[in-house]
Amino acid sequence: MKKLFNKLVILSLFCFVQTEIQAQNTDSIFIRKIYDEVLSKGHAYEDLRYLCKEIGARLSGSAEADMAVQWGERIMRQYNFDKVYLQEVMVPHWERGTTEAGWYETADGQLHKVNLLALGGSIGTNGLMKAELVMFDHLDELKNAKEEQVKGKIVFINQPMDEKQINTFKAYGGCYPIRGMGAIESSTKGAVAVIIRSLGMPVDEHPHTGGMYHKDEVKEIPAAAISTSDSEALAAAIHNGKVNFYLEMDCKVFPDKLSYNVIGEMRGTERANEFITFGGHLDSWDTGEGAHDDGAGIIHSLEAMRVLKTLDYHPKHSLRAVFFMNEENGNMGGKTYASEAKKNNEKHIAAIESDRGGFSPRGFQCDGSSTQIELLQSFGPYLEQYDLRELQKGYGGVDISPLKEQFEGIPLFGLVPDSQRYFDFHHAPSDVFENVNKRELELGAGAMAALIYLLDNNL
Amino acid sequence: MKKLFNKLVILSLFCFVQTEIQAQNTDSIFIRKIYDEVLSKGHAYEDLRYLCKEIGARLSGSAEADMAVQWGERIMRQYNFDKVYLQEVMVPHWERGTTEAGWYETADGQLHKVNLLALGGSIGTNGLMKAELVMFDHLDELKNAKEEQVKGKIVFINQPMDEKQINTFKAYGGCYPIRGMGAIESSTKGAVAVIIRSLGMPVDEHPHTGGMYHKDEVKEIPAAAISTSDSEALAAAIHNGKVNFYLEMDCKVFPDKLSYNVIGEMRGTERANEFITFGGHLDSWDTGEGAHDDGAGIIHSLEAMRVLKTLDYHPKHSLRAVFFMNEENGNMGGKTYASEAKKNNEKHIAAIESDRGGFSPRGFQCDGSSTQIELLQSFGPYLEQYDLRELQKGYGGVDISPLKEQFEGIPLFGLVPDSQRYFDFHHAPSDVFENVNKRELELGAGAMAALIYLLDNNL
Repeated sequence: MKKLFNKLVILSLFCFVQTEIQAQNTDSIFIRKIYDEVLSKGHAYEDLRYLCKEIGARLSGSAEADMAVQWGERIMRQYNFDKVYLQEVMVPHWERGTTEAGWYETADGQLHKVNLLALGGSIGTNGLMKAELVMFDHLDELKNAKEEQVKGKIVFINQPMDEKQINTFKAYGGCYPIRGMGAIESSTKGAVAVIIRSLGMPVDEHPHTGGMYHKDEVKEIPAAAISTSDSEALAAAIHNGKVNFYLEMDCKVFPDKLSYNVIGEMRGTERANEFITFGGHLDSWDTGEGAHDDGAGIIHSLEAMRVLKTLDYHPKHSLRAVFFMNEENGNMGGKTYASEAKKNNEKHIAAIESDRGGFSPRGFQCDGSSTQIELLQSFGPYLEQYDLRELQKGYGGVDISPLKEQFEGIPLFGLVPDSQRYFDFHHAPSDVFENVNKRELELGAGAMAALIYLLDNNL
Repeated sequence: MKKLFNKLVILSLFCFVQTEIQAQNTDSIFIRKIYDEVLSKGHAYEDLRYLCKEIGARLSGSAEADMAVQWGERIMRQYNFDKVYLQEVMVPHWERGTTEAGWYETADGQLHKVNLLALGGSIGTNGLMKAELVMFDHLDELKNAKEEQVKGKIVFINQPMDEKQINTFKAYGGCYPIRGMGAIESSTKGAVAVIIRSLGMPVDEHPHTGGMYHKDEVKEIPAAAISTSDSEALAAAIHNGKVNFYLEMDCKVFPDKLSYNVIGEMRGTERANEFITFGGHLDSWDTGEGAHDDGAGIIHSLEAMRVLKTLDYHPKHSLRAVFFMNEENGNMGGKTYASEAKKNNEKHIAAIESDRGGFSPRGFQCDGSSTQIELLQSFGPYLEQYDLRELQKGYGGVDISPLKEQFEGIPLFGLVPDSQRYFDFHHAPSDVFENVNKRELELGAGAMAALIYLLDNNL
């Protein structure tokens, strides 16, 4: 009898192990199918081409942003997502205008034109403005400066990104305050305008725009970024003597506009009111084509759902691909999506964002509990062979971050592509389709689809 | 007494642990210094620019290969390496000539010019050659073909690289035989020439050259590669009817020439006759600028030793940076280096090669015993923070492979950069300086210096 019992135990253990192995094989096989589809029959590259070349840069409130919304809805329907709809979002509306130029004038009267972009949200100069430049190598130097050093001048903040950082996002984080806070700090001390060194990693001719803050009690002043190579030349000129700066920009803020998040769903077969959201942002800055930022994230999400549909996958939970509007200057899309989800009594169990470019993916970060990070790491054996080895604690993304406030304990995941080239292109005229590699883009879509699949089967 | 003994045991254990931790800290700090130097005061990018732009493509036997040797010796001396010398190597000498063109003619008499490169080592056509084309989708199809299908014709092998492979080197490996063996297989069946689809991953206009084999008893025939986009167009044309091909090439083989490996040493302070070799190959194909293949490997090795010198590192073993000559069509540099090392009774304990491009490094492969692979993996905690997470069994490199025959048990290490873009450029006119990213190149040099340091301290 005991022998029989032992045999039964061994047999059931064997069956359990067999089932486990079969489940693992099923998962491995399905993930391999995902990659086969994106790499050999993928739509990612052509869809990104369309978004970049037939629509182009698409700042919130622009005609191109409207076209991008139309395209998003159209292509999701074309791919037969179970449910496709638009979600209303009120967004800020700023326009660069038609005049935008800057020159510095050295003591000998020579003029040097610079490559310049107004920062998003800046006021214009109301005609040609001229003032003496005062340079600071770091935002803290400006903060510590005396008012008389700055008053009536144009401030130039020449703080470079730290090349020693291995991850370029850390270098960006260190410089971000000069763009965000430069105008406020300069105006507080009486400056008439502020020029910053572009937040770009290489020394080249491309200016990089981006968002900036305003403060109610501080007078708004014009703010612009000049290219890193112009910054180096300008710094050298200032070391040699007094330098004046001429600035003309007619950018301005308009009233808020109605825009939309674009949402496509696959209905869950077991727990339809539990949602896994994945997305990127549809808006971009108004220069370049928003190819890496965040055309790539849009395409990763679109292609991930297209592939799951194509492979006839039936998810347990409801899956939502979301093209968020207005990440760049307000995050109104992300905030609206999260509050509407709460209002509609949906249960959100995970969210994934791709907003770090279309480069070779290296893994995922998880903004969550240690158990949630361990879950991500338990996927390692499935993901390693696709070169996804960085599975660790970190950040999800701007668009999905409001979900955390509405749904306590929800894990947020961020796709981590290689970061080295991101700040060559970020917010610059060079962020165009030609600078995205087909296979690198496709592998990002494969990574996202694989994680969606694994989360759907393990949450 | 026993208590005292216990205390002593605990104390000595504590001291041991302390020493271990200090050693780990010292290693971490030194590796951080390596990266700080390459990323913020590095010479890698400017040195690669010089090699690519002031010298350019440098096939064995060419004037440019001679200039590259001179440059290599000069810059190693300029960087004050302890000992710099040239090692004689006899190399093959093949020249592309001045005439190189191909057209296909469809049944309606229309001519279509193709982007074409003779394969390295091919004979010329001796004037304009014309013959009917016969197409095979795979080398095996050609092998299985009947002689009458092929006799008197030009064979076209249209075998694409497998996009489903995650690592592009695997896709390359699968196609490599069409370039290496295509001419022999075609000639065996009586073909008058062979045209292959380029071994390039994307569908674009760049032809990719490369080496090919000859067989004594098989008649040599002209061999060339056409671009992948031309291959697709040509395949479509052949599906529509009979197609003739016109080919003219005046490439030819000259007698072998004297050339050199360039070697720079840092003398070991403890075991001077034990060598750690690291290098890449100085020669390149004669198209493009040999930027990724293998300018990057040359620069990784040069910069690694420059940085170790600059940081005043005194290695235990002797370190050798080697610029190997003739990897592309003979590997005479690698063979000579290994046999000379043996002849001189040197003891070689490890070798590292970089010959997979100047892309973002992901880790190292080790061609060695399981103990040697475990040693590499034990470096993980030092390397992970530099995004070097792939530490596993694999391949070293062509140039260092002959060391294995001469020194039993020597571990060979290969730097593993991201592979996605390598076969966009490999052996093609597009392998130029502009397609190398500064930071990605620098990180490769940092990775190589870090591994040299860790091996020197753990072997």
